[in-house]
Amino acid sequence: MLFSPTVLINRIVYFILLQMSSSLLFMPMHQPLPRLRTYMTASGWNAIIIPCSDPHLSEYIPERWKCLAWVSAFTGSAGVGVVSAEFAGVWTDSRYFLQAEKQMKNSGFSLVKLKIANSPEYIDFLMETLPEKSTVAVVGNTIAMDLFIQIQTKLKSKNIQLVAVNDFWDELWNDRPAIPAAKIEEHGLIYAGKPRTEKIAEIRAQLSSRKCTSHLITTLDDIAWTLNLRGNDIPYNPVFLAYLYIDMKAVFLFTDKKKLTDGWIALLKNEGIHLKDYTEIHSFLSKIDSTSIILLDGRKVSIALHQALPEKSNVVNAVNPSIYLKAIKNETEIKQLKQTQIMDGISLLKFFYWLENTLGKEKITEKKIVDKLFEFRNIHDSFQEPSFASIVGYKEHAALPHYTPVPETDKELSNEGILLIDSGGQYEGGTTDITRTISLGEIKEEEQKDYTAVLKGLIALITTRFPENTVAASLDAIARRPIWDAGRHYMHGTGHGVGFFLNVHEGPQAFGPGGNYIPNAIMEAGMVTTIEPGIYHKGKYGIRIENMILTVRVEEDGDIPFLRFESLTLFPISTELIDISMLTPQEINWLNNYHADVYRQLSPYLSKEESAWLRKKTEPVTNPVTTQSF
Amino acid sequence: MLFSPTVLINRIVYFILLQMSSSLLFMPMHQPLPRLRTYMTASGWNAIIIPCSDPHLSEYIPERWKCLAWVSAFTGSAGVGVVSAEFAGVWTDSRYFLQAEKQMKNSGFSLVKLKIANSPEYIDFLMETLPEKSTVAVVGNTIAMDLFIQIQTKLKSKNIQLVAVNDFWDELWNDRPAIPAAKIEEHGLIYAGKPRTEKIAEIRAQLSSRKCTSHLITTLDDIAWTLNLRGNDIPYNPVFLAYLYIDMKAVFLFTDKKKLTDGWIALLKNEGIHLKDYTEIHSFLSKIDSTSIILLDGRKVSIALHQALPEKSNVVNAVNPSIYLKAIKNETEIKQLKQTQIMDGISLLKFFYWLENTLGKEKITEKKIVDKLFEFRNIHDSFQEPSFASIVGYKEHAALPHYTPVPETDKELSNEGILLIDSGGQYEGGTTDITRTISLGEIKEEEQKDYTAVLKGLIALITTRFPENTVAASLDAIARRPIWDAGRHYMHGTGHGVGFFLNVHEGPQAFGPGGNYIPNAIMEAGMVTTIEPGIYHKGKYGIRIENMILTVRVEEDGDIPFLRFESLTLFPISTELIDISMLTPQEINWLNNYHADVYRQLSPYLSKEESAWLRKKTEPVTNPVTTQSF
Repeated sequence: MLFSPTVLINRIVYFILLQMSSSLLFMPMHQPLPRLRTYMTASGWNAIIIPCSDPHLSEYIPERWKCLAWVSAFTGSAGVGVVSAEFAGVWTDSRYFLQAEKQMKNSGFSLVKLKIANSPEYIDFLMETLPEKSTVAVVGNTIAMDLFIQIQTKLKSKNIQLVAVNDFWDELWNDRPAIPAAKIEEHGLIYAGKPRTEKIAEIRAQLSSRKCTSHLITTLDDIAWTLNLRGNDIPYNPVFLAYLYIDMKAVFLFTDKKKLTDGWIALLKNEGIHLKDYTEIHSFLSKIDSTSIILLDGRKVSIALHQALPEKSNVVNAVNPSIYLKAIKNETEIKQLKQTQIMDGISLLKFFYWLENTLGKEKITEKKIVDKLFEFRNIHDSFQEPSFASIVGYKEHAALPHYTPVPETDKELSNEGILLIDSGGQYEGGTTDITRTISLGEIKEEEQKDYTAVLKGLIALITTRFPENTVAASLDAIARRPIWDAGRHYMHGTGHGVGFFLNVHEGPQAFGPGGNYIPNAIMEAGMVTTIEPGIYHKGKYGIRIENMILTVRVEEDGDIPFLRFESLTLFPISTELIDISMLTPQEINWLNNYHADVYRQLSPYLSKEESAWLRKKTEPVTNPVTTQSF
Repeated sequence: MLFSPTVLINRIVYFILLQMSSSLLFMPMHQPLPRLRTYMTASGWNAIIIPCSDPHLSEYIPERWKCLAWVSAFTGSAGVGVVSAEFAGVWTDSRYFLQAEKQMKNSGFSLVKLKIANSPEYIDFLMETLPEKSTVAVVGNTIAMDLFIQIQTKLKSKNIQLVAVNDFWDELWNDRPAIPAAKIEEHGLIYAGKPRTEKIAEIRAQLSSRKCTSHLITTLDDIAWTLNLRGNDIPYNPVFLAYLYIDMKAVFLFTDKKKLTDGWIALLKNEGIHLKDYTEIHSFLSKIDSTSIILLDGRKVSIALHQALPEKSNVVNAVNPSIYLKAIKNETEIKQLKQTQIMDGISLLKFFYWLENTLGKEKITEKKIVDKLFEFRNIHDSFQEPSFASIVGYKEHAALPHYTPVPETDKELSNEGILLIDSGGQYEGGTTDITRTISLGEIKEEEQKDYTAVLKGLIALITTRFPENTVAASLDAIARRPIWDAGRHYMHGTGHGVGFFLNVHEGPQAFGPGGNYIPNAIMEAGMVTTIEPGIYHKGKYGIRIENMILTVRVEEDGDIPFLRFESLTLFPISTELIDISMLTPQEINWLNNYHADVYRQLSPYLSKEESAWLRKKTEPVTNPVTTQSF
């Protein structure tokens, strides 16, 4: 699945606007903005910043914290609201310009177009419009400590005060959704491969080596990974709302106690993990020993939590050790994930088999495909939910890399055109993410050239071997070069790390920016990443091919240790769309070997008909031109 | 020419140690360290930081500011000294471990090995060893404002004070060299292509758009570029010691007045450029209008200059606008540089022709080659000096990427082995930088495989086309991939920007880190950069091939504007060392086209014998295997 690039696409916006919840569009009686302004006046705030964040600064946020959507009607995933007495605006990037303008029409909010996505350009507005000695408020548990301090420092230079305030939205938002309270489930050792006690010991070892005595974790996937627990509070991400505090003697888990059975609470206590209520975190932090040296990630810990610490606390602002520990999958996880990829391949095979045999006989729409993907993945017991909202784009819809069908856009398939499907599953034995692009009818030369360029990009990176300590992001251009050769480009990252039965976007590694990645993270053996180059032809079609890959050591050593990639994803790559004459013998070789492997691994689990279908799809290709002239 | 990578090579150190000046090795009467400690005690300093920098934070520094070398005997280009009452150490990176240990043997200084090159790890030492309320001194004009503030903030947390002090070395260092005082020369419009008034207007336009009212420039190449003047104060870099202050009405140049004739002083004044003495900068800055908004680069402006500003100054800490303006060469510069490349090619041709005809007849050593390179470049009137110390490495010496011959290491050539020559010239019509590797005898298979891998790396990047706004550094891996394919790697950057009759290492763009580059700088049409992949086989040989390239627009547009590279360097690439069977038809094509172009451009200027020699060296290659099996 794609992640949004830092520099964003100007053109890919049309259909997103149709996804907006129509109930938010017209609200004559609703009038949240005047109510907010009244509240601001009463509180003595000249302006307020409204981030689009939850207390864990998650990628997907629970409904409860969609305060910006409630007040402005803008439902995009990236945007910051700023309200003063004279002006109310939402700063967002080019993906959302059309959507924001339409949604906010009657809200009193104006769209402010960001020059650089995700940058806090609203600071300039505050600096320019507010008089000295003004006060700007922001709800302290929805803004990262680092960003808060950055804004605070800037505003201070004009003698404007930035204050972190308590979450007051309950007072304005009558039917505000509650905090999600889904049950916590065990993520068994058969999948996790390493007991939580061992993971905690590894984290403690890293704390020691950095001269820290404790660690505050607020990122939900890190908490779930550390404790071998999974939840269901956020769609697509099997995490639960919690905070975790680890010191050298004990571990404190802050979460809604109703999420766990008494038996589990006792068991965790027995392992030195003490349960406290989710809301107790602030008072707990305020009482920690002032000699503690606390490691926390200022990009991920809210200013509210930072301010809860005793005034003279020693904080080491650094990336959570668990980010690296969890990115390098252990042997059990790798074994499980390989099994899971077989299951996911079988599901996709059954889906595409169904599609091929049903197209033209029954009505099939993009949304129907989303449902069928779910249905075919759901045949496996260990399947829990999709790992993200399936991207199913037919014809021109596929030209929007992030398109997901909604009733208003849902398109019926016919015997022509390109279909792009980017989907994945959350299985107990791992998270999957795969994109395949097929043609439903006659293939145009242009489509074939673009498809082959994308395939060449995938193969170029997947066959790269590289020395240890190579920065993951630096490999990005290798996948892009064949696409540039074709005079095309794509405006998203080439790939992202993938969690194990956790978030489909997981750092620290990525090919190109995005997905919680850390810029200089090196690629290490055991990491699981996607490679997903694409070409998007506005108004016509989109092509993307995505495999998940495992980083492994190269057995024969060069002058220093080398790493290489191994495909995890097991599903044929459409050969109909390939212009074989554009492939080198090495590329043809890779494709044929890959397909042989797919057949070998999937066929034992298939019916006779499915197996025959797969054999056909994985038939070796050969270059009609067998000699090359110089 | 190479630049040092951030992560440095552990192994490449042997011969560097032999370059040390033996006069610094033994100094029984000299004893600078006790004198420094006495001075520190008298001044009330508990410790002192001694950077290896001049007041312009230049890459090459004049002898006068080699204070660290004077006090510690360590002559490496990267190192920081720290002296307290109990300890004196030099923090340096792995390139210099052997050299530093040997040189500092009798100095009282210890070597402290840096974990990460160029990082201020000595801060930890200060934090751990100094008691609270200590005072640490650093000479304020030899440390960047940003770094000073970073160290100051850190030390403050332990209640240790960092103070920027005046340069006191004159009081200790009796025969300290004077400030260089070479004459300033005009860099004529015929070469520069743009009058200084226009350049200043462009800088002012950028100041306006950033809401700044003035600009302090301290980097010598930016000053030389802006004013179309050149100097001779620093070897290899045709710059002069100066500061420049540009406001919206006037320009102030601070330099030794003796460097300019009265006529020139009057002429500059006429253009609104007022001359002041080099030493007047501090008092000038202290008197500037307090409403000024001054753009300056905190990575390049010393803390001494920053502290000279009135207390309530408005400073915008940003990259100098001239960095980008000067990197994009104008049409005149490009035309001149292409002429210069022909001259440099002719010189190299005469050199290699001489080498081939002399080897075995006369004694030829590495140092002799350095001299002959100078001699053959010096046939051109516009040649001024080498653009860096020539790297001439024979056999195992070439395995040290930065090796330059000194009397103690100078090796005699014979009819065998690999010879690597990386050299360049400062011509009025531009700066050159070229590396060629040849074999002097029988070629081993391993050498051929490595050479061909390096050539493939060069061709891969040189033939890449890419969309506008591509980050230059992101292209780096494209050159590395063919070398990784061969199980090899290199630990230096793939290429750096090159100045125009200015520094051979010029930012902002680079392939991989180094050379004054700015990490996210995009590649733009008109930029001049090197591509110089290599393979180094410790104790055996080293291979590097380097061409300078110009970035140009692609004429036929894809869906967005594309850029590509054009070779500027004109000299044959040794075909003897190529294993043709490893090249693709496209690579062979590129090589043959390149060689045809080299012949076409150089042959008109050659004697009959030289021309015949060149024709042989540029003969097209063909692949003996004309069919490929699948």
